[in-house]
Amino acid sequence: MMINLKRLMETVNTSAAIGATENGGLHRLALSREDTEMRATFVQWLETADLRVTVDDFGNIYGWREGTNPGLSPVVIGSHLDTQPYGGKYDGVIGVLTALEVIRTLNDKGIKTERPIVIVNFTNEEGARFMPPLLGSGALIGDFSKTSVYETIDAEGISFETALYESGYPGEKAHRLKDAHAFMELHIEQGPVLEQNQKSIGIVQGIQGLAWLTVHVKGKADHAGTTPMSDRKDALVAASAMVTALSRYAASVEELVITVGTLQVEPSAPNVVPSGVTFTIDMRHPDDHMRKGVPMAIRKIISDTSKMYDVDFELETNARADTVHFPGRIQNILLEETSSLGYEAKQLYSGASHDAKNMIRIAETSMIFVPSANGKSHHEEEYTSDADIEKGANVLLWATKRLADEK
Amino acid sequence: MMINLKRLMETVNTSAAIGATENGGLHRLALSREDTEMRATFVQWLETADLRVTVDDFGNIYGWREGTNPGLSPVVIGSHLDTQPYGGKYDGVIGVLTALEVIRTLNDKGIKTERPIVIVNFTNEEGARFMPPLLGSGALIGDFSKTSVYETIDAEGISFETALYESGYPGEKAHRLKDAHAFMELHIEQGPVLEQNQKSIGIVQGIQGLAWLTVHVKGKADHAGTTPMSDRKDALVAASAMVTALSRYAASVEELVITVGTLQVEPSAPNVVPSGVTFTIDMRHPDDHMRKGVPMAIRKIISDTSKMYDVDFELETNARADTVHFPGRIQNILLEETSSLGYEAKQLYSGASHDAKNMIRIAETSMIFVPSANGKSHHEEEYTSDADIEKGANVLLWATKRLADEK
Repeated sequence: MMINLKRLMETVNTSAAIGATENGGLHRLALSREDTEMRATFVQWLETADLRVTVDDFGNIYGWREGTNPGLSPVVIGSHLDTQPYGGKYDGVIGVLTALEVIRTLNDKGIKTERPIVIVNFTNEEGARFMPPLLGSGALIGDFSKTSVYETIDAEGISFETALYESGYPGEKAHRLKDAHAFMELHIEQGPVLEQNQKSIGIVQGIQGLAWLTVHVKGKADHAGTTPMSDRKDALVAASAMVTALSRYAASVEELVITVGTLQVEPSAPNVVPSGVTFTIDMRHPDDHMRKGVPMAIRKIISDTSKMYDVDFELETNARADTVHFPGRIQNILLEETSSLGYEAKQLYSGASHDAKNMIRIAETSMIFVPSANGKSHHEEEYTSDADIEKGANVLLWATKRLADEK
Repeated sequence: MMINLKRLMETVNTSAAIGATENGGLHRLALSREDTEMRATFVQWLETADLRVTVDDFGNIYGWREGTNPGLSPVVIGSHLDTQPYGGKYDGVIGVLTALEVIRTLNDKGIKTERPIVIVNFTNEEGARFMPPLLGSGALIGDFSKTSVYETIDAEGISFETALYESGYPGEKAHRLKDAHAFMELHIEQGPVLEQNQKSIGIVQGIQGLAWLTVHVKGKADHAGTTPMSDRKDALVAASAMVTALSRYAASVEELVITVGTLQVEPSAPNVVPSGVTFTIDMRHPDDHMRKGVPMAIRKIISDTSKMYDVDFELETNARADTVHFPGRIQNILLEETSSLGYEAKQLYSGASHDAKNMIRIAETSMIFVPSANGKSHHEEEYTSDADIEKGANVLLWATKRLADEK
């Protein structure tokens, strides 16, 4: 039994036309006009596949395929159909559409399972329209109150509640998924590891922990024309030395990544020596113990550099998240099915966050990664080959069937 | 004959109250409500000093003290009364108010001169409200057309013309100053050189030349969590290495200053490896020959660093200005008067631009600098001592009298 690649890619291409960008990407922000159109198409697909469609009060959409044993909890598969601004057509989307293909294949073969199988499309995974990310799955497991989710506003002041009602998918609290036997999410890797290791399948061991820090560097504003170099306390020169030192440090520690993604200069005039710089640090490492030590190393780098450039600094910790470890049992099932299918797998931690990180609170969870060409993601050029999508979908098919037959 | 310091400082303090900020600075943007109030007060002071007030069609205000020899061109002294946002109370202001004190002192003593003496207040020197800076003096000497000046808009879309009419000082073209025997501008140094050399008086040799460049660094956006350090083309890490290398290079060349005052990151998200950085370079050196070679050295630094970090770059030249040299004759008169008064002077180039840079096109020109405490300027904490202002004003008084008696 194998999935139907032609049908799957037709479905992926139909999705890719809803919010298509000029450069071949997708711009389909959560609950936007495009997302609403995608949801309608998706619900139609679910109904055509004889699934029972339910929607919860966060707009998460479920398609239920009943099992033969009514008392058993479902195996849940899926991801999200919203995208980043000018993002790619695979991120999230292929997790939902391979799940649909799994159902269609089981239907084709007339295969029944003990447990229900549920496809899910989570609302606002990206956090690009409504902050924070993972909003639909996070609300589902109780990380956010309904009030706080509903009151969240987008950049134009439109609330999540208004957008949800306007999308036509307000749903009901009674439909929230309460527990599940297992959750599996297929996703594009968003990094270069599988490609570099020439593996089509990634079995995800967990979501690596992170810390987000903010550094404020305080120098002295001076006139660019009248202040000799030796008299300056240039916050930007000092901050630049910090950025390069942090990058060198990260490169020296295995599996550590440090990113300075934002940096603002004050007062920001071409002819004024910068008095202040604020920059963010995103630091990730799968090992919790290691990761707890890194902020101390970062503080030392910032502090030493400050002294060298005669500036002051403040270091804030904005967020920390421990590494989430997925259970070995689901990973082993995925490894076995990959192997049975004749594919090669690599186990790895996810650097990015996913709805799976929330779902582990109510289900045994893991993820299947397929390679990102050149590691590109959150980008219109995001790409994964049809052949790899096919392999990933087949692994999902067999692992789903196996888990859905567990008593 | 000496100026009256008490009266001068009362005048400076009256000015310091018009647009005063909480932290002891001045916020008096060109043709704003505050500047309009200052202009009215200034005109009143001119009239009280028996000066004939004229205003040209750029709002430059003149106060004429006639000479005994009607055929001779005037000696012009002054500066500007507008300030930077949250700037200091000395920059520009003391140039105008010491000029007023010179007139008052000559009046007190009943001294007549051969040539007219004219006080001038130039409009919009700072360029903080209307770009570019030196707008009033630049328009006066024909660097900008009247149409282009009048159509210049501020950040709120208000045109210079509208602001000028609303200020009540629209003036007439016939009142533009056409030529002058000499122009002298007293100004706060805006740098640390006089303070470090323990000199009260700076005799300005000219305005040092500059080049403004813009660098675009092009890397690759990647996910901060999923992209190993070795696979990144991080535009910000590369740009940071450029900023520190440029600073080290400038420190190694005498009299060279290089400032990176603005730096923008794309896409500017904490969890995205920067794909692009744009930053400005302000480079100044008094030696024209030297300064023309520096951009090549800068290009080599940018290019070498780009290769090292595997990113691309573009380098644009936005502006170049040659060094303006003030004539030795006026400098010598200022040196002699400083010496006669028993003060010590240091000759130096101005790193900043001033209306004097334009006035040299219609008059023999130089400037008198007084020290900036800690080199601070364009800042609410800008400060120069009363004693130094007194010395500067006395030098201005004697040099003005001497030049105004030249046949």
